[in-house]
Amino acid sequence: MESTRSRLAHRLAEAGQSHLVQFWDELTPEQQAEMTSDLEAMDFQEINKFFRSAMEVSHSSKQEKMDARMEPVPREVLGSVTRDRDCLKDWEEKGLRCISQSSVAVLLLAGGQGTRLGVSYPKGMYDVGLPSHKTLFQIQAERILRLQQLAEQRHGAKCCIPWYIMTSGRTMESTKTFFSRHSYFGLCKDNVIFFQQGMLPAMDYNGKIILESKNKLAMAPDGNGGLYRALGTQGIVEDMDRRGVKFIHVYCVDNILVKVADPAFVGFCVQKGGDCGAKVVEKTNPTEAVGVVCKVDGRYQVVEYSEITLATAEKRSADGRLMFNAGNVANHFFTLAFLRDIVQTFEPQLQHHVAQKKILYVDTQGRLIKPDKPNGIKMEKFVFDIFQFAKAFVVYEVLREDEFSALKNADSQDGKDTPTTVKHALMSLHHRWVLNAAGHFIDENGTRVPAIPREKHSTFPSLIPSSSFPHSLKDGTDLPIKCEISPLVSYGGEGLEELVSGREFRPTLVIDESGAHELVKNGL
Amino acid sequence: MESTRSRLAHRLAEAGQSHLVQFWDELTPEQQAEMTSDLEAMDFQEINKFFRSAMEVSHSSKQEKMDARMEPVPREVLGSVTRDRDCLKDWEEKGLRCISQSSVAVLLLAGGQGTRLGVSYPKGMYDVGLPSHKTLFQIQAERILRLQQLAEQRHGAKCCIPWYIMTSGRTMESTKTFFSRHSYFGLCKDNVIFFQQGMLPAMDYNGKIILESKNKLAMAPDGNGGLYRALGTQGIVEDMDRRGVKFIHVYCVDNILVKVADPAFVGFCVQKGGDCGAKVVEKTNPTEAVGVVCKVDGRYQVVEYSEITLATAEKRSADGRLMFNAGNVANHFFTLAFLRDIVQTFEPQLQHHVAQKKILYVDTQGRLIKPDKPNGIKMEKFVFDIFQFAKAFVVYEVLREDEFSALKNADSQDGKDTPTTVKHALMSLHHRWVLNAAGHFIDENGTRVPAIPREKHSTFPSLIPSSSFPHSLKDGTDLPIKCEISPLVSYGGEGLEELVSGREFRPTLVIDESGAHELVKNGL
Repeated sequence: MESTRSRLAHRLAEAGQSHLVQFWDELTPEQQAEMTSDLEAMDFQEINKFFRSAMEVSHSSKQEKMDARMEPVPREVLGSVTRDRDCLKDWEEKGLRCISQSSVAVLLLAGGQGTRLGVSYPKGMYDVGLPSHKTLFQIQAERILRLQQLAEQRHGAKCCIPWYIMTSGRTMESTKTFFSRHSYFGLCKDNVIFFQQGMLPAMDYNGKIILESKNKLAMAPDGNGGLYRALGTQGIVEDMDRRGVKFIHVYCVDNILVKVADPAFVGFCVQKGGDCGAKVVEKTNPTEAVGVVCKVDGRYQVVEYSEITLATAEKRSADGRLMFNAGNVANHFFTLAFLRDIVQTFEPQLQHHVAQKKILYVDTQGRLIKPDKPNGIKMEKFVFDIFQFAKAFVVYEVLREDEFSALKNADSQDGKDTPTTVKHALMSLHHRWVLNAAGHFIDENGTRVPAIPREKHSTFPSLIPSSSFPHSLKDGTDLPIKCEISPLVSYGGEGLEELVSGREFRPTLVIDESGAHELVKNGL
Repeated sequence: MESTRSRLAHRLAEAGQSHLVQFWDELTPEQQAEMTSDLEAMDFQEINKFFRSAMEVSHSSKQEKMDARMEPVPREVLGSVTRDRDCLKDWEEKGLRCISQSSVAVLLLAGGQGTRLGVSYPKGMYDVGLPSHKTLFQIQAERILRLQQLAEQRHGAKCCIPWYIMTSGRTMESTKTFFSRHSYFGLCKDNVIFFQQGMLPAMDYNGKIILESKNKLAMAPDGNGGLYRALGTQGIVEDMDRRGVKFIHVYCVDNILVKVADPAFVGFCVQKGGDCGAKVVEKTNPTEAVGVVCKVDGRYQVVEYSEITLATAEKRSADGRLMFNAGNVANHFFTLAFLRDIVQTFEPQLQHHVAQKKILYVDTQGRLIKPDKPNGIKMEKFVFDIFQFAKAFVVYEVLREDEFSALKNADSQDGKDTPTTVKHALMSLHHRWVLNAAGHFIDENGTRVPAIPREKHSTFPSLIPSSSFPHSLKDGTDLPIKCEISPLVSYGGEGLEELVSGREFRPTLVIDESGAHELVKNGL
């Protein structure tokens, strides 16, 4: 025991981190034991090396502007749902075939807690307030189930889409318990594989690890790019190999519209021979806060919005579109071969990014301090850091209103990316599915509601006709028709004609395995 | 007196509107006199005719879908600031020349009160909370002043842009008083011409005029298309002719970014030989609530968002854009010759549109009733109703973030088209002007702020890096750099280099005739 302690003290001293045990004598024996085991598990030399190279990169490259070195995604590597409509069926076909051969897996990045959302549990467990009260996890699970079914129907063979879920030290237990309590939402337990990303300590600007209490280091997940290290350390690549997985779709938990294992995206990437692909949405406003996929010095990467000058952000191609318009939505395709190379060869070469943060800490008197400006850094890798290693990078452009609406913040005045906005985005999509399957909605007077409803009748006297004043940026997600379609019934709008064609519905409309029902106001 | 009364009674009886005087005996002599004069001024036969034909149109055409008859705006008649960048200088040159010859007038549609905005005075008098506290009227006036100056500088001759302001019975007096109290914001009084659009009574579904009190008819402005009748009845066309006006730019008061008499727009229309033109912004989301300019049965018109089916709204051209994407922003160009034809020949042919409304009324017992569903109609014409008569219709596409942000609603949770959003849109535009003139902004620590600023530093511990999660639809107008540039200094971003190039500013930055200043937090 004493030798353990002195060995640890020696290691700390060598790494310049002896301050971590400054309160040792004030700790209870239990706290001492726990802290010892925390510290024992850490490779301080490696952490110090991470710090040095992250700070170096942050000081050098960040300053020089990307602009001169940026090139847009060339048309040859781009597939677009709006510009390549003739190919969509083929790509989807191709993707479904891969799925039917059980060679497609999905990988969910779910290491974050819902802190900004105002909850202490994993985001995937959040109920955004749909009529069904399904959580994000359940919606995604049911899309996987439905997609397996579609592939089976098309190709006549049982298949499976393994679901890899990356959690963090903070979310592992609650996530597993949640899935278990819900019987994996109907998925086979063996095909839901949890693994855990690493944690790194927060450090001050001098490379000293920060204590968040006398006996606890300030720790955080190592960024969603922590994925690649975790794939190696936790044997996930081998597991994929064992299962015959060839293609992996990676996405973030917070996008309520995510098309998990999207067959068209997978099919496009496979057909193009891509080893690494990014799904993007068109950036249409130069100052929109979204990173863009582009080439820098001939290699693909994501240039973040804070790294681009206005002049470059405003550049346009001859067709009038923004030149750098491939908006990254953290939605990627990888071949297993590519991931294996990353894990074995390239991951260790990746430097961490530095994120300056206000970090709670205890001062030398042991008082907890809440700083009012950034006092230290978190070190993170990003999931897109590996684009540069792709031999055949491809980009797939989809429609934002169909595929991307992220849950980040609690409902509030400001109101972006909230439970309300994502719920509305989903209901708006399902509303459009019903209309496109020749269903109709009627209002309380039995009148058909237009696809884009007029505003509520205002009370007279009012202004000059509202119709002559266009509504800037208002769209169907503002006050959507209340409509929810279970993913078990439809993955992407298919199969609804027989349920809705020629029929009229009064919202709230719910379509699930038992059919189409109108929900009456007070309960069902 | 008695004969007046009996003649009036007779006219009312003939028109089926005798109920209007059902409370006659309860009125004071003053009320009787006032009501007599109100009723004397009305042409009930004409109003009844308007009602009949408006209802007829509303019942027949509204029902049959436009879809099959709609064609998009052909490329030949379209000018685009993003796709025709090579022509922009020429168009602007051409427009400035017309302005320098005093042949361009602007015409402001300002008949509405700020009811939805929560104020009882005209919208143009609203202060949206800019550092300067300028009202919409002042901003527009100063843009006219600056543009006159630019044209004079370029062409060396004094010129004038007459400003025609259409008010309504509700806004005339307060508007005139406001301009007079502010000395016409520096414009020559003689070149600001007020005129008044007509009013029409609200009617129930049986064509009976509605009483809003025992002695008052429910009256409303006749829509922004009331413009054309007013141009005739108030001698405006003659006034324009007398002044040598050839081209007229018409716009709505609520767009804070409006480029009054936009030389590029005017120049484009003139160069194309257009007699009637519409400035549009690209509609990018199928369910966005904006009317689109298109051809129906071979003639141009605006199809409102509630008239279009989803299938048509979702149609795309080969280039991936929405096929019907010419979003109408109530911003038009007319030649005087065209307006004269409209006033003399076509205006009387235009039917009114029917807007169903909840209309306060007195019942037969004289009690004031507030209905909870629509109980009657307003009759309105729209400013775009005359597109169909154009011989050479042209369309000019501009960027929404540069030219369109409308003030409609009070600040609220929902938060679209509010004082805050329009203020942010203006400050975001001015921020971009400063950056493009090689100025910079710095934060409280003296660090340069990126063009698209990162979010505020969050407190640790937090989520996986925010940078890896794109922000849907968030843009530079969310939390803009506080920056306001007086229109007296710059109409469209020009002339700022000498003031800002190479300089660093701490917001709030205000640029006016006395130079560039930073406003300190507590006052100046």
